[in-house]
Amino acid sequence: MSTRLAIGIDFGGTSVKPGVVRGKEIIARAHPIPTRTHQSADSLLAAVFRDIAVLREQHPEIRALGAGLPGLIDGVNGRVRELSNVPGWLDVPLAALLRERTGLPSIIENDANAMAYAEWKFGAGRDRANVVCLTLGTGVGGGLILDGKLFRGSQLGAGEIGQMILEPRGVPGHYGNFGALEKYVGNREIIERATKLYAAADLTLATDEITPLSLEKAAMNGDRIAVKLWEEIGFEIGVMLSNIAWLLNPDRFVIGGGVAKAGPLVFEPIKRTIRERTAPVYHEHLEVVPADLGNDAGIIGSAALALDAAAKL
Amino acid sequence: MSTRLAIGIDFGGTSVKPGVVRGKEIIARAHPIPTRTHQSADSLLAAVFRDIAVLREQHPEIRALGAGLPGLIDGVNGRVRELSNVPGWLDVPLAALLRERTGLPSIIENDANAMAYAEWKFGAGRDRANVVCLTLGTGVGGGLILDGKLFRGSQLGAGEIGQMILEPRGVPGHYGNFGALEKYVGNREIIERATKLYAAADLTLATDEITPLSLEKAAMNGDRIAVKLWEEIGFEIGVMLSNIAWLLNPDRFVIGGGVAKAGPLVFEPIKRTIRERTAPVYHEHLEVVPADLGNDAGIIGSAALALDAAAKL
Repeated sequence: MSTRLAIGIDFGGTSVKPGVVRGKEIIARAHPIPTRTHQSADSLLAAVFRDIAVLREQHPEIRALGAGLPGLIDGVNGRVRELSNVPGWLDVPLAALLRERTGLPSIIENDANAMAYAEWKFGAGRDRANVVCLTLGTGVGGGLILDGKLFRGSQLGAGEIGQMILEPRGVPGHYGNFGALEKYVGNREIIERATKLYAAADLTLATDEITPLSLEKAAMNGDRIAVKLWEEIGFEIGVMLSNIAWLLNPDRFVIGGGVAKAGPLVFEPIKRTIRERTAPVYHEHLEVVPADLGNDAGIIGSAALALDAAAKL
Repeated sequence: MSTRLAIGIDFGGTSVKPGVVRGKEIIARAHPIPTRTHQSADSLLAAVFRDIAVLREQHPEIRALGAGLPGLIDGVNGRVRELSNVPGWLDVPLAALLRERTGLPSIIENDANAMAYAEWKFGAGRDRANVVCLTLGTGVGGGLILDGKLFRGSQLGAGEIGQMILEPRGVPGHYGNFGALEKYVGNREIIERATKLYAAADLTLATDEITPLSLEKAAMNGDRIAVKLWEEIGFEIGVMLSNIAWLLNPDRFVIGGGVAKAGPLVFEPIKRTIRERTAPVYHEHLEVVPADLGNDAGIIGSAALALDAAAKL
């Protein structure tokens, strides 16, 4: 299985990153293609096909092709219904296009699902039947592996942990969902909160810019405002993961993205909150771990999904 | 399939109710056995076995036996790990006992799961792959059908919707889970809230006792406090179902139990809240419907699970 090669493409809003994958290793990469320099889907796809051709020349044994994309992706029928932040991609039968142009068995999948699949198959979610992945960044997203399979939901929208409601009467969310988790623990919101806290205390952070990274460093150096902020963020994430534990009773939470790099600063309050707010059955066997595969999870997961789908043909 | 007969047993904290089931019909019932008059598991089981013998004499074509029980039930291995509110039932291999004593293929299952299975197979959740069932009563519970299968979770605790956190800094829950949904919309809490509201308004309800039923009647007669209370309860349930929609993107929510009988009084605010607090993908195809099988769902679901398991032997 893991000796077979596939191309995985991480189709981001900023850049499109193709790579040749063997198991959990990316053994070759094409140059990332800047998404926004292409005015149309056709032009962007032409660039992607050129990259694919180069990679296949180097590795003729490539067996399958998978792409992970942000947005409303119908992985079952291989259609991009809507691409987040990239216009011109309404209802594109991308899997069929990839298949026709390359002759390779091809699949597409929502990028958060591809990442969750990679972590479950090769990373921090290995060897468990029920794994909930959470990605913390500018956006807060997630993916679910339930009973050993990727769970997509009826309209393929499952796993939107960042849109779940933490405070029913909290700050407005994008979709009328007042108090959405993302509005508390997304990167932008963390920076905003920190800025306000330092201003209120008439203090400044000992760096020129407030970022999640500088706030991590500050907290590690004992800055009390930063320590307290991470504690609050951990509590908020912990409350939402407690809810998911009551509902799904998973084996593991896998947490990735920039904020997860804050390590114990954020993992400790998360774990403590779950322990304090669930019955023993829900937390005694539960593991809360950082993601393993970092930014490569999208490429690795797309390739793995493509190989697994091809194996069933 | 549905012409085969099985015994389903609804193993409640108050009474144990065995019935003979064909498809969704209960064609014969034994007298309910009061749970608490029996001092030991052995004595209670002896009474259950007498009932089973009588039912089998009347219906010799019975093919399987299933029991739904409240508590921590290992349906996979057939063990009662812990029975809610009934002592003396720690780690009982009940499915094996039932099998040995009756010679019938026998299964046990958590009662909320059995109810969800019945509603999915024969009731309000029919013909859909992803169905979330919510039961409103003194306790607030639930069961999940995901990708066309009962989803139990890793430690068999999935579906505890009533313990999910609505208000992270709200009233204390049983398990440290401040602001648990059950603490707002459980029967006892509804009565408490109404009592306070009428007292604060220096009014009384036009019946001698405040119950969910009398509050429904009052609201239907235009009592403004009662109307507003149901509106709030619907909002609270709607927020939690919005969260479940973001996470699981189901086809249907099936809502049962006493409070669900309040009909549009509570269904309208639930639906409106979900519509207002989720993106279109999550609510456009979503149905929110009352349960179909009422108090019989436990018996019907246990019997159906038993027949389906027996068919795989």
